[in-house]
Parts: sequence; structure tokens; C-alpha cells
Amino acid sequence: MTYVNVGTLGAVPGKRDELVEILTRRSADLEQTGCLLYEVGVDVDHPDTVFVAELWTSAEAHQSSLQLESVQRAIQEARPLLSGEMGGFRFDVVGSPLRD
Amino acid sequence: MTYVNVGTLGAVPGKRDELVEILTRRSADLEQTGCLLYEVGVDVDHPDTVFVAELWTSAEAHQSSLQLESVQRAIQEARPLLSGEMGGFRFDVVGSPLRD
Repeated sequence: MTYVNVGTLGAVPGKRDELVEILTRRSADLEQTGCLLYEVGVDVDHPDTVFVAELWTSAEAHQSSLQLESVQRAIQEARPLLSGEMGGFRFDVVGSPLRD
Repeated sequence: MTYVNVGTLGAVPGKRDELVEILTRRSADLEQTGCLLYEVGVDVDHPDTVFVAELWTSAEAHQSSLQLESVQRAIQEARPLLSGEMGGFRFDVVGSPLRD
């Protein structure tokens, strides 16, 4: 069952774009682990927040991606840029109006 | 700039699946209006919540979709199934680790 993970990451003021740079760095690993979509973004009303929306082949694929060396390195690199505020949710996909 | 809209819709207890059925009804309108992705889902830990994750060609495309007759009809039909609890967030996409 495909799986969605969406989240908000609080950035230390002034560090949002550095966080975006880390999260948007090209990664073949993610695709090989079952990542179907990984969109990183911002919102003018939340200048210190980075947003992510991810689609995975399964919850397990998402979970295993967190053990990838490249992801662990990115998490370490991002840690000092994070304010600690986080949000979001996850769900199992059951359908779409764009397909039968 | 592509645009993400993700949300949580509280359902009246026992009405979640009816809400899912409305939201997953096949709709060519959405695609024609610029909807690139529209995933509807559930989570075992939140039995009365329907989750959506949407990707649009632009914020304007998303906004204009809300005026579509088919969407207005779906909103009317869904209204009595909604508990009133809603959440989520929206953002402009600035990049992805899955593409250069």
C-alpha cells in the first residue's frame, strides 16, 4: 500500500534555505528504496519552516530509508539548523480521483 | 511553481469510508485543472480521519479547482459527513532530491 509522509520542519531563523539545500540534494538512494515522490517547499507566511511531502511504495520503504547512510548524514548535517518545531502526518493511500 | 496541499478531514464517527468514497470518485476535471497528484488515505491510529495529499501545477490551479461544479457538488455531499475538525498545510515546491 503506498504511503504518504508529510511534514513541517522548523528552521533556526535565517537557516531555512540551508535546510532546503540539504533536503533537495540529489539522491538516487531514495528512489532505490521506494521513494515515488519527495517535494520540498516553503511558504511565504512561514519564513522559518521547510515543508516536505513524500510518497513511498510502502511504510516499510519509508522506514528503511531512514537507515540509509546518506539520509543519516543529511540528518546529522541538518540537526543544527532545526529549531525543534516539527509537525505533519502519515497515512496509507486507499485511492485517488485521478485513477480508477 | 508547483504547489502542495495536504490536509486532514475529521469524519463523523462511522462515516470515514463514505467520505473516502466521495474523495476518490474518478474525476477528469481535476487533471484538466492542473492536479498532478491527489492521494486519499487513512491511518489505523486515526479511525475518524481522512487524509489527502495533493500536488498542483500552481496555487492558482488548486484555487480554481474549488470552483469546479463537480468539486462543489462533492463538497456539498461531504459536508454532513464532516466533524468539523480539519488540519493541514500548503506550500510552494522549491525542489526535490529525486530530480536535478
